[in-house]
Amino acid sequence: MDLLGQREPAVYGKVTLKQINAELRKIAGRKNIGLKIVQSNHEGEIVDLIGKANAKFNGLLINPAAYTHTSVAIRDAVASCGLVTVEVHLSNIYSREEFRQKSLISPVAKGTILGFGAKSYILGLEALMDLI
Amino acid sequence: MDLLGQREPAVYGKVTLKQINAELRKIAGRKNIGLKIVQSNHEGEIVDLIGKANAKFNGLLINPAAYTHTSVAIRDAVASCGLVTVEVHLSNIYSREEFRQKSLISPVAKGTILGFGAKSYILGLEALMDLI
Amino acid sequence: MDLLGQREPAVYGKVTLKQINAELRKIAGRKNIGLKIVQSNHEGEIVDLIGKANAKFNGLLINPAAYTHTSVAIRDAVASCGLVTVEVHLSNIYSREEFRQKSLISPVAKGTILGFGAKSYILGLEALMDLI
Amino acid sequence: MDLLGQREPAVYGKVTLKQINAELRKIAGRKNIGLKIVQSNHEGEIVDLIGKANAKFNGLLINPAAYTHTSVAIRDAVASCGLVTVEVHLSNIYSREEFRQKSLISPVAKGTILGFGAKSYILGLEALMDLI
Amino acid sequence: MDLLGQREPAVYGKVTLKQINAELRKIAGRKNIGLKIVQSNHEGEIVDLIGKANAKFNGLLINPAAYTHTSVAIRDAVASCGLVTVEVHLSNIYSREEFRQKSLISPVAKGTILGFGAKSYILGLEALMDLI
Amino acid sequence: MDLLGQREPAVYGKVTLKQINAELRKIAGRKNIGLKIVQSNHEGEIVDLIGKANAKFNGLLINPAAYTHTSVAIRDAVASCGLVTVEVHLSNIYSREEFRQKSLISPVAKGTILGFGAKSYILGLEALMDLI
Amino acid sequence: MDLLGQREPAVYGKVTLKQINAELRKIAGRKNIGLKIVQSNHEGEIVDLIGKANAKFNGLLINPAAYTHTSVAIRDAVASCGLVTVEVHLSNIYSREEFRQKSLISPVAKGTILGFGAKSYILGLEALMDLI
Amino acid sequence: MDLLGQREPAVYGKVTLKQINAELRKIAGRKNIGLKIVQSNHEGEIVDLIGKANAKFNGLLINPAAYTHTSVAIRDAVASCGLVTVEVHLSNIYSREEFRQKSLISPVAKGTILGFGAKSYILGLEALMDLI
Amino acid sequence: MDLLGQREPAVYGKVTLKQINAELRKIAGRKNIGLKIVQSNHEGEIVDLIGKANAKFNGLLINPAAYTHTSVAIRDAVASCGLVTVEVHLSNIYSREEFRQKSLISPVAKGTILGFGAKSYILGLEALMDLI
Amino acid sequence: MDLLGQREPAVYGKVTLKQINAELRKIAGRKNIGLKIVQSNHEGEIVDLIGKANAKFNGLLINPAAYTHTSVAIRDAVASCGLVTVEVHLSNIYSREEFRQKSLISPVAKGTILGFGAKSYILGLEALMDLI
Amino acid sequence: MDLLGQREPAVYGKVTLKQINAELRKIAGRKNIGLKIVQSNHEGEIVDLIGKANAKFNGLLINPAAYTHTSVAIRDAVASCGLVTVEVHLSNIYSREEFRQKSLISPVAKGTILGFGAKSYILGLEALMDLI
Amino acid sequence: MDLLGQREPAVYGKVTLKQINAELRKIAGRKNIGLKIVQSNHEGEIVDLIGKANAKFNGLLINPAAYTHTSVAIRDAVASCGLVTVEVHLSNIYSREEFRQKSLISPVAKGTILGFGAKSYILGLEALMDLI
Repeated sequence: MDLLGQREPAVYGKVTLKQINAELRKIAGRKNIGLKIVQSNHEGEIVDLIGKANAKFNGLLINPAAYTHTSVAIRDAVASCGLVTVEVHLSNIYSREEFRQKSLISPVAKGTILGFGAKSYILGLEALMDLI
Repeated sequence: MDLLGQREPAVYGKVTLKQINAELRKIAGRKNIGLKIVQSNHEGEIVDLIGKANAKFNGLLINPAAYTHTSVAIRDAVASCGLVTVEVHLSNIYSREEFRQKSLISPVAKGTILGFGAKSYILGLEALMDLI
Repeated sequence: MDLLGQREPAVYGKVTLKQINAELRKIAGRKNIGLKIVQSNHEGEIVDLIGKANAKFNGLLINPAAYTHTSVAIRDAVASCGLVTVEVHLSNIYSREEFRQKSLISPVAKGTILGFGAKSYILGLEALMDLI
Repeated sequence: MDLLGQREPAVYGKVTLKQINAELRKIAGRKNIGLKIVQSNHEGEIVDLIGKANAKFNGLLINPAAYTHTSVAIRDAVASCGLVTVEVHLSNIYSREEFRQKSLISPVAKGTILGFGAKSYILGLEALMDLI
Repeated sequence: MDLLGQREPAVYGKVTLKQINAELRKIAGRKNIGLKIVQSNHEGEIVDLIGKANAKFNGLLINPAAYTHTSVAIRDAVASCGLVTVEVHLSNIYSREEFRQKSLISPVAKGTILGFGAKSYILGLEALMDLI
Repeated sequence: MDLLGQREPAVYGKVTLKQINAELRKIAGRKNIGLKIVQSNHEGEIVDLIGKANAKFNGLLINPAAYTHTSVAIRDAVASCGLVTVEVHLSNIYSREEFRQKSLISPVAKGTILGFGAKSYILGLEALMDLI
Repeated sequence: MDLLGQREPAVYGKVTLKQINAELRKIAGRKNIGLKIVQSNHEGEIVDLIGKANAKFNGLLINPAAYTHTSVAIRDAVASCGLVTVEVHLSNIYSREEFRQKSLISPVAKGTILGFGAKSYILGLEALMDLI
Repeated sequence: MDLLGQREPAVYGKVTLKQINAELRKIAGRKNIGLKIVQSNHEGEIVDLIGKANAKFNGLLINPAAYTHTSVAIRDAVASCGLVTVEVHLSNIYSREEFRQKSLISPVAKGTILGFGAKSYILGLEALMDLI
Repeated sequence: MDLLGQREPAVYGKVTLKQINAELRKIAGRKNIGLKIVQSNHEGEIVDLIGKANAKFNGLLINPAAYTHTSVAIRDAVASCGLVTVEVHLSNIYSREEFRQKSLISPVAKGTILGFGAKSYILGLEALMDLI
Repeated sequence: MDLLGQREPAVYGKVTLKQINAELRKIAGRKNIGLKIVQSNHEGEIVDLIGKANAKFNGLLINPAAYTHTSVAIRDAVASCGLVTVEVHLSNIYSREEFRQKSLISPVAKGTILGFGAKSYILGLEALMDLI
Repeated sequence: MDLLGQREPAVYGKVTLKQINAELRKIAGRKNIGLKIVQSNHEGEIVDLIGKANAKFNGLLINPAAYTHTSVAIRDAVASCGLVTVEVHLSNIYSREEFRQKSLISPVAKGTILGFGAKSYILGLEALMDLI
Repeated sequence: MDLLGQREPAVYGKVTLKQINAELRKIAGRKNIGLKIVQSNHEGEIVDLIGKANAKFNGLLINPAAYTHTSVAIRDAVASCGLVTVEVHLSNIYSREEFRQKSLISPVAKGTILGFGAKSYILGLEALMDLI
């Protein structure tokens, strides 16, 4: 399974992200599932990664962060990659500024989990494993 | 814990709802947590139930169904009930008609889980138990 | 046949509503068709009635009155009840205030008849009998 | 009685339109009412016909088709012709594209009937005869 | 006089509402005016109460709370009940969230008083007694 | 107490304004409260008056009339003057033209009273005295 | 000079239009100016007339009536005909329905005169003669 | 007759305004009509002048310049002054920036003349004299 | 093949249109394809022509000019004619006025070519021949 | 050089404004440039001052305060005064309420400096001296 | 000639893109024109490539894919590169989701060709060679 | 101090940018302040640079160019980097196309300076040094 796009380290602290990743690896390991974690601030790089993920993975767990609201390119990549996709957000984007209350990714994801902090990733991974 | 508002039985089949409820009770039982499940098509009734829930419960798991998009009364009830609230949806409301792409409940919930069918309830209960 | 939702008695006079109902019963009787007439001011009650109508009726004639413009719940009930539905209005909602010029029910009804006063019900019943 | 504007022959098939017209003539004949049926794709011609209809007819049954959504000229002609006007549509315009969900004619018509296919014309003629 | 719709007890504390009601009864008693106070969270119930109020009362003092912003049904009930109506709000709805800055009731009320907490009810009763 | 901005004499008749002022003076006198009444058609003058009012008064009762809908300058003056402010309107601005259905002053006032004609001033003064 | 598009005879009475035309001819005659008056309900015809007017006339006086608000074709014809154009309206379109408060012709006309009934034509002709 | 509000001297040159005024006085003199011309950049002053104009004049010719688009106060003054009002503009406001394409004054004026430069005043005076 | 609607001769010069037509005929001739060219300023006429084209032609090349932005009737004719349709524009409509930046025809055409002047027709014919 | 419109003394404290003015005079003195500082709460007065500034000054430094968002009159005065204009704001208007996030002055100013408190004036004066 | 931005390989299949490129090279070769083809998913890279293209090429053929709807940076690069630019799209963007019905590139391109699949590139190259 | 994002070299000429940088270095040198200047067309790169700037710098001077209007990612990077940020623009973005009249960066910057060409950078550096 391919895990893309945890793009908030500067904002939410590096330690936490490492801990989340460890936790995710533990959960995947328990179910004997392969997991690859990548992080990037570059819209094009994320598009490239999703484009190549299809050949090697069965699902996609993505936190599109700021690109949630602006990137048609990532939306198209998700829509055309053929992977079951789960969108997660650390914060509740619908209780923040108005321009954040629109996700371009949600309509092409299978489902979305938001507002539970690091727990959003854990629940997202569970949901994704359940779907595959 | 108070579980309100699974309001889709006519739409999504009675059997499924019963099965979801059984599954939810099993999970809660395993963690030794009290669980009450209610279902109503009446906005006012849902408001009353949430209003009284504060005295007896620690959290609220709600699928506001069609009232997601129109009920300021349920929003106000959730905002003022003092319970940690998790919003769930069977379907991905953001890939449906435009008037469904706005949730009045999301801004006052702690978090939201949507698009995973019955699994949304299971993940929502987990998230809620994690928060309490 | 199930007839729900004539919700204007206070506004348009009780007598008229009784007379409409008598007229509707006469027309249905002439064609040997069963007819049940109900009236309610409660959105949730209307949703319940529609939800149960499927088991006993073949069609639905509805005047959603003020809920025409605000009730996603009634819309969803109509859309999922599996009955051929005809929407009627006493007045021409498109020549009234702007917030009345939008019907949430029209897109899920088979057809709509509006502006002919009590005659709207008669024509609606004819259209409904023609469709079943 | 003047019958204008059935403008859908190319779209919905010539045969049907002829059959509708025959049916309409039969109904009018039964009630001993004069009926004139005209069809045009030209906005200006429709305006002219409505302008002259006042002198010879008591009512107007109109399917403004595509001009429903764009023609202020036909709206003004209807509003100023002094005839009781009934608007009909073959399809349910409120369940189609957004730009079709606005009728410029509805606010100046007495009433509207839509979504019942050819039956819309029959019901419209009945409504119109009832009003005159 | 009929007093409907103080719908905020859960939100603003039961004690206060009782005290407001006592104060309102004292003021009405001083002027030898009959007063009935009701409270409900159900839109349909409020519509029913207003519909029946006309036969027994001369005026209506209403705090439509959350339904202020969504209920065309209560608006229609107020508009057609034939009673002089005064709308009150505990808080200043125009300094809150944008979706609260629109009252569907104000255009059909005689006047509106908002922002003075419990004092809004007292001033509203005075205004209503002055109008009758 | 400072009383600014009754700006409707040309529209609503000079006599009435004098009578309102006399009534307001009588009420203030009964409670032994100082009262100053000013009237101006000049936005800048109103801003100046509010700016200087802080040093000498404890509250502000204002009918911003036409400037209600256009003056950010009066809004800023009210917001920064440090006085408890009550906004009054003779007419119900929410049942008039759409451009009048927005008050720039309401969000910065403590409360608003509208639609009771001259009585709006009396109620406003009572509310203001209650707040100080 | 070419005078096109007085399209309101059905609405405002034939007699008046004749009288206006007589008056216009008298004014033009006094100044020894050639004048041609045409009237049509057909958008395409009006476009044709304007297209050919350039060869024979120096100016254009036009009352685009209902096409004022919808016809990009007439706008383009006016903009490209190379004639000084004056737009006139019998009524004050800015105090009518909202969809009439937008003229597609005004931005391409030299000037506009509206609201003075038949006098609008007289003033428009004066303005046009002054411009040529 | 009262002539208010030629407010463009700085913008369009003092000489021209003097010449327009002379021309207007000549026309009024020829018809033996009294004429008073005033100019101000102050919204409040214009409101005062219109308020007092009723006692001494029969009509009002106004170029509201920049206040055309922002002043509800001048609109209310015009609407309540009881004088027949003609609005004039030197330029064609409908071919300028979008925020200038809305006149708050037009809906309360009898008619409007715009786009003919100084000639707009002359035509406006003619229209006004014709109306009185 | 049927070629409809080159409607810009007045605007862009007759000669050019003739030359374009000659060029188009030459290209069609080279491929041994029948070609009919028509031009009209009348919306209704264009609708009639498209309605009849189905019987005799395999494709439609159309420059809807000003009707691009306003004609639902032509849109419906194109959508229901059953011919492969290519839309062409001489100018780049997306770099012109805002009301021109919306084509009602594009969503029902197979493809669109715009901005290359006369060359747009040549490329459009090539694309159309390629599609048939 | 003419310095108009520092209009915030009530809001931001008189002392600070005096200190800013002293600082501005010192900077201007150092470069041997004449400087006149004026302050007014009256839109009309500000318009008059700008209108007369052209004869005596080479540049204009303006803080339009609340009029930033509403005054077309000041915008027109700035646009037509022929002086190089620099707009300054004490606060960052784009991080405040939505109605403040639009400046009518910015499009006609040479440049804008905002958000640096009193320093905005100093930088504005430097920019203005650099431009002249 | 420079050919940038065919960015759809993942979506529309690699083979097709290679075939298109081969076809484009054949056409360019036949006319003895140099052609460079590049592909990137990175907005910044595309901006860099366009920025450097001016020195070596005479024209630009671009399929901005998802960036069509969001990239002001590519728009500015195209507008300032000084090359004749032709925009192409495989699909008809105007018959897809609403957020795709706006191209930021079209207003700064010479012309646009869309909806003909791979043929769009061929026609675009022809148009570009014709323009240079 | 960190200086990021001068992204206009292709557009405004390389020489000028070099000269601006020299000038900025001279000013910083005079005050004995460290300065680092970077330039990139890549949104992700800019996000990375801002993310790492916090450890080494005290302030951020940024010209976000085209990303001003589209990049939520840069906005979030600025908001979370903890550096005092000054936004500069060479041109007056509020007198350009409408889609440029919105800055996503302004609400999270301390202040903004725009419209003074290269001088905007100089003033921005001064403002930044004053703030640190």
